[in-house]
Amino acid sequence: MVNAPAQIQSDQALSPAQTLWDMAAEDMAAVDALITERMQSPVGLIPNLGQHLVGAGGKRLRPLLTVATARLCGYEGTDHHKLAAAVEFIHSATLLHDDVVDESALRRGKKPANLIWGNSASILVGDFLFARAFNLMVETNNMDALGILSHASSVIAEGEVQQLAALRNLSMSEDDYMQVIKAKTAALFAAATEVSPVLAGKPASEREALREYGLKLGLAFQLVDDALDYGGFESALGKSVGDDFREGKMTLPVIRAVKAADKTEAEFWHRVIVDHEQSDVDFETAVSYIRKAGALASTMDLAKEFSRDAADALGVFPKSPWRDTLQNLAAFVVARIS
Amino acid sequence: MVNAPAQIQSDQALSPAQTLWDMAAEDMAAVDALITERMQSPVGLIPNLGQHLVGAGGKRLRPLLTVATARLCGYEGTDHHKLAAAVEFIHSATLLHDDVVDESALRRGKKPANLIWGNSASILVGDFLFARAFNLMVETNNMDALGILSHASSVIAEGEVQQLAALRNLSMSEDDYMQVIKAKTAALFAAATEVSPVLAGKPASEREALREYGLKLGLAFQLVDDALDYGGFESALGKSVGDDFREGKMTLPVIRAVKAADKTEAEFWHRVIVDHEQSDVDFETAVSYIRKAGALASTMDLAKEFSRDAADALGVFPKSPWRDTLQNLAAFVVARIS
Repeated sequence: MVNAPAQIQSDQALSPAQTLWDMAAEDMAAVDALITERMQSPVGLIPNLGQHLVGAGGKRLRPLLTVATARLCGYEGTDHHKLAAAVEFIHSATLLHDDVVDESALRRGKKPANLIWGNSASILVGDFLFARAFNLMVETNNMDALGILSHASSVIAEGEVQQLAALRNLSMSEDDYMQVIKAKTAALFAAATEVSPVLAGKPASEREALREYGLKLGLAFQLVDDALDYGGFESALGKSVGDDFREGKMTLPVIRAVKAADKTEAEFWHRVIVDHEQSDVDFETAVSYIRKAGALASTMDLAKEFSRDAADALGVFPKSPWRDTLQNLAAFVVARIS
Repeated sequence: MVNAPAQIQSDQALSPAQTLWDMAAEDMAAVDALITERMQSPVGLIPNLGQHLVGAGGKRLRPLLTVATARLCGYEGTDHHKLAAAVEFIHSATLLHDDVVDESALRRGKKPANLIWGNSASILVGDFLFARAFNLMVETNNMDALGILSHASSVIAEGEVQQLAALRNLSMSEDDYMQVIKAKTAALFAAATEVSPVLAGKPASEREALREYGLKLGLAFQLVDDALDYGGFESALGKSVGDDFREGKMTLPVIRAVKAADKTEAEFWHRVIVDHEQSDVDFETAVSYIRKAGALASTMDLAKEFSRDAADALGVFPKSPWRDTLQNLAAFVVARIS
C-alpha cells in the first residue's frame, strides 16, 4: 500500500518477529494445532486452564525459534512441530508454577490461572503440560533432542530455585544474577534453537552456533524484561510494572543501583528489599535511584551486547532470508525498550 | 538362628517386602547412591529439601519393583538402576506437589518439606526432580522405556487434576474413583514394572504380564492406603489418620458409606464433605458410618482381589525366587491392614 501512515511503517520496520511469524506462518499453524490437540483431556479442568494460558495472548516466541531455526537448517520433515510444541509446553508449565511462586497479579495482560482456578490446579496442570512435552519429544524418536530439552528442564528448575533462595538478598552478585537468568530463561531459548540442527542432522559447528544464538538471545530477552519492570509500560509487556520490586526480586537494575547507593539510598534498599516494607511511593523512588545510577541504561547496553553476539553467532550459516530474519529478531528483542 | 522368638518369626513371615529388599540389597544400594548423586546441585536448597524427602523414611517400593522385575527378567546390565532412580524421582516430585495441594500435616511421619521451606521451594524442587528423572532416562538411551515413563507421568498428573476437581463432590462414582487411583497411583507402579522387560528385551507377553502386575499391585496399594486413612494407625503408615476426611477427598470407603446412608447419615456427609464444616468428633462418626456400611471391609476385599490378580499375572514366568517374592509382595501389600 502506497502512502501508508509513517507510524505503521515504523511499526513494521521494528517488527522482525512479525516477519519471522509471517515466514513461519504455516509451521506455526501446525504447532498451534498440535498444542491445542495435546492439551485435550477428559478431565475438563486441564484444557480449560491450558487454553486460558497457552491458547491466548502468548508470543509463542520459543516455538517460533524452533521452527525458524529448523528451516534455517533446511529441515524438511514435521518433527520440528512436535519439538516446538514441547518447548511451548515446558515454558507454559514454568509460567503456571511461577505464577504460584511469584503471586503474580497479571500474566500476559490477563488474570493468572491460579487466581481463577486456584494454586493447586495451576501446579497440577503445569505438571501435566510438562509431562505432555516429554510425550511429544518421545514421538520424534530423537534421543539427542530429548537430552537437550530434558537437560534444559532441570537447569530451568535449578535457576528458579536459585532465584527463590536469593529473594530479598541485597548482596546478590552480578555473577549470581547472570547465572540465574542463564538458567531460568536462556537455557530454554538455547535448547529451542539447538534441537533444530540436531533434527536436521547438521554438523557440530551449526549446533554450537545455534545454541549460542539461543543462549545470547535469551540473556538479552531477560535483561530487557528485567529493565522493563522498572521502566516500561504495562501495555507493552502484558505484565504489571513493578512486580519484581514488590516481590523483592534482585535483578540487574537493582543490583547496580544498590552498588552505587549513598547512605540514604542504601537504607531505602534495605527497607524495601530485605525488610520488605514498602509503601505506595517506594516504587517511584526505586525507579529514580535506578535511573540516577544509570542502571537501566547499562542493563540495556548489556542486553544489546548479547543481542549482537546472538546475531554474530549465525555467521556460520550462508546468507538467507531465514538467517536475516533471525538476526533481525535479535535486534528486535532489545528494541522493546527505548 | 534356632529358637528365635515367635514374634520375630511372624514379622519375617509377614514381610516379603523386606525379603525382596534383602534380595535386591546390592541393586538398591546402587539406586540409593544414584538418587543422592543426582539430587546434588550447587543450589543448596535442592539437596537439602530433596534429602529431607527422598533421603529418609521412604519405602522405595517403586524403585524396588523396577530392580526386582529387571532381575526377574534376567537383566544383567546396570540401566535398571537409572530407571529405578527415575521412578523414585517422579514419585518424589508428585509427593512434593501433593503436599502443597493437600496441605498435608505429615509426610512419612515427618513434617512435609513445604511446611519447612515453603510452598514455592516444594513446587520448584519437585520440578527439578521431575526433570532429573528424564535426564536419567535419557542416559539409558532406551526410547521405549522413556515412552512408558513419560506417558505414565502425564497420566499421573491427569489423575491428580481429576481428584482435585472431584474434591468435596459427594456424587463421585466408584468408576470415577477407580479411574483416579488407576491414574494417580497404579500408572507409576505399572510403568515401574513394565520398563524391566523392555530393558531386558523380553517378548510382548512378559511386558504385558509385568504391566498387569504393577497396575493391579498399585490399585491394591492405593485401596489399602485409602482404607488405612479411616482405620489404620498413624505409626503404621507414617501419615496421620483422617487426612482424606479433613480434605473432603472422596475415597471408596466414603463413596460406599454415602451410598448406604440413611437420612441422618446423608445430612452428615453433606455437611462434612460438601459444606466442609467439620468438628472434632466428626471423624469418629465418619469411621462409625463407614464401618456400619461394611465399607472398610469391602474396600479391603477389593484390594485383596487386585492383589491376587497381580500375583496371577506373574504366572507367565517360570517359578523362581524373584517370582515368588514378587508374588508374596502382592499379598504383603494388602496385609498392611487387618
